[in-house]
Amino acid sequence: MHSFDLYLPTRLVFGRGRVSELPRLMEGRGKRVLIVYGGGSVKRTGLLDRVKAALSGFEVSEFSGIEPNPKIGTIRRAVGLCREKGIEVLLAVGGGSVLDATKAIAAGVSYEGDTWDLVLDHSKIGRALPIFTVLTTAATGSEYDAGGVISNPETDEKLPIMSPALFPVASVMEPEDTFTVPAFQTAAGAADIMSHTFESYIVKDGNELTDGFCEAMLRTVIENAPKAIANPGDEDARASLMMASSFGCCGLLSIGRTPSPWPCHGIEHEVSAWYDITHGEGLAIITPHWMRYTLSPETAYRFAQYGVRVWGLDPKAGEMENARRAIDLTAEFFRKIGLHTRLSELGIDEAHFGDMADHVLKHWWPLGNAFRPIDRDGVIEILRASL
Amino acid sequence: MHSFDLYLPTRLVFGRGRVSELPRLMEGRGKRVLIVYGGGSVKRTGLLDRVKAALSGFEVSEFSGIEPNPKIGTIRRAVGLCREKGIEVLLAVGGGSVLDATKAIAAGVSYEGDTWDLVLDHSKIGRALPIFTVLTTAATGSEYDAGGVISNPETDEKLPIMSPALFPVASVMEPEDTFTVPAFQTAAGAADIMSHTFESYIVKDGNELTDGFCEAMLRTVIENAPKAIANPGDEDARASLMMASSFGCCGLLSIGRTPSPWPCHGIEHEVSAWYDITHGEGLAIITPHWMRYTLSPETAYRFAQYGVRVWGLDPKAGEMENARRAIDLTAEFFRKIGLHTRLSELGIDEAHFGDMADHVLKHWWPLGNAFRPIDRDGVIEILRASL
Repeated sequence: MHSFDLYLPTRLVFGRGRVSELPRLMEGRGKRVLIVYGGGSVKRTGLLDRVKAALSGFEVSEFSGIEPNPKIGTIRRAVGLCREKGIEVLLAVGGGSVLDATKAIAAGVSYEGDTWDLVLDHSKIGRALPIFTVLTTAATGSEYDAGGVISNPETDEKLPIMSPALFPVASVMEPEDTFTVPAFQTAAGAADIMSHTFESYIVKDGNELTDGFCEAMLRTVIENAPKAIANPGDEDARASLMMASSFGCCGLLSIGRTPSPWPCHGIEHEVSAWYDITHGEGLAIITPHWMRYTLSPETAYRFAQYGVRVWGLDPKAGEMENARRAIDLTAEFFRKIGLHTRLSELGIDEAHFGDMADHVLKHWWPLGNAFRPIDRDGVIEILRASL
Repeated sequence: MHSFDLYLPTRLVFGRGRVSELPRLMEGRGKRVLIVYGGGSVKRTGLLDRVKAALSGFEVSEFSGIEPNPKIGTIRRAVGLCREKGIEVLLAVGGGSVLDATKAIAAGVSYEGDTWDLVLDHSKIGRALPIFTVLTTAATGSEYDAGGVISNPETDEKLPIMSPALFPVASVMEPEDTFTVPAFQTAAGAADIMSHTFESYIVKDGNELTDGFCEAMLRTVIENAPKAIANPGDEDARASLMMASSFGCCGLLSIGRTPSPWPCHGIEHEVSAWYDITHGEGLAIITPHWMRYTLSPETAYRFAQYGVRVWGLDPKAGEMENARRAIDLTAEFFRKIGLHTRLSELGIDEAHFGDMADHVLKHWWPLGNAFRPIDRDGVIEILRASL
């Protein structure tokens, strides 16, 4: 059994109509609140109004315009606004991008230099403003972890920001706030949750406990994503996806297992840094090809177990056959929920694959520690197969 | 999907040799530490010496003699010692009883009146001393929750104490510290972990995610308890049990499910309040009879799923047959790992069953909310079947 630390200090507040509890959750943190959000969807759905009504006893400011793959320039502007207004508490209302940006803002306000320094060197992150969230998509798990991903278009970099100071204090999760998430975003979110799980699950040493946790995550998404896409107001399906999303990135799925360098996320971040594609769709494209790259007689047992326990394959069919079939079913699932299956369909060619490989090997966790070690040629092989 | 809050602020620090990290974990909490432990086993194994060596920079006092089913009188003495010495930090070195007692001590020190008041009325618990733990048994899950169970022999009461102030700050879990746990205690701990899981799992509404979490817990214990009993130094089996123990009581297994009044725990606490038997063995005796009491055509689906997914029964055999078979296998498992199967074997007769039923219905969560509602006659029926 591998050693681990598990630390999850965020309070998850899950269920219908729980935005009304924000004042109680925020008690003692200060009165000057900045609501951070993206485009107009939280206005259109009425969620922003509900949040503001709940915060009637607070001094509320707003910062909108957080983009998908949030950019450091936007974050710098928000940090400036926080200083100007003396903001004491941040409230992210949105999905993963809004949460990630809010974490960078929270750290940036307490740092004298440029916020991008904190992305490049996490040890410079000291204190941070207290972060609260009202989640509107089931995807990144940012509502229950201490990290985010920030893009710098000037340098074509997309890098994590991480610190225990960046755990949200509380994350409010109302499944009904995800009813209006379009089919494509629902599918991309589902792929993101599944990829988080695969990054922990497809490693050398597992254990019965977290094998089972991972398999429950995968079955939950495979069962509920198609239902939520077919019927956007299916509360139970939406709730199931939302509940699962929180556990993908928080560390629970990897306890006691071989530590994983999260290869698909490393490679996908390169692609979306260069081409600004939707993270979850990028993962859906790359994941099956990473699986095929990884599959060998030595690694087949893990994929075969996945096939039997998640897809219900017959164990008698044999390890390698079940492993291949499980990978095919994974690719097929992503296609069926409406995601592209090739990078070329998104207008991507191999022009920058060399740069991407160089960058991921320099800035990401060591891909040499993946289940099948991945070197520069390996990154390019996986990217070419994904074209 | 049922609403829930999930809040788990304790840091789990798991793996070989991690006691040496105590000073870092305790930083900033104060220098005057009280080590709380039970009998001599932590002395004999050398663990206490290792802990004291790690704390060479602290001012360390000791309080020993915490008994199984810890008694309020012992806790009162420890509270007095804390006040006398100006203790700032508590470190529990032991199993569930030592941890539970330490939580009551932590709350008692900050309360002017008698500590038993806090057991009777949790709203009186305000601040508490910071709690750290070095765990020596895999059983109660007290290392990752905010509660404990305290006995009062004067009133034949055994009641929970619970407050968010009572989460340990950090729990150090070295699997090697459980190598010396005797076979009987290992088995009783396994039954406790399984019972925690059943209390969350055997309810009306489940969901794929936590169904899977619960089933992984049960498979983990069923696979590893016999290994740990047969070979006490089997590190992987010990680690698996220890890892599973933390999730039984922390709330993770019940998110989104029908809230459960934990009927077996309510009933068992009555038995061990009157007869001071080992909690886990009491649960092992009562659980199968509670299952049989609960089983009906309306509830069989849940037991049948348990049978298929945990015991590998053939789904084609039919729901009621698989349900019955799963319950029999549960009872059989407890017998095989060396636990008694009847209360009468422990010298218990039905003399106090009426008092127990009256008390559990008055002081426990409402058993009318169990999967099959349990009234006074129901409690007595389950106890009689367990004789």
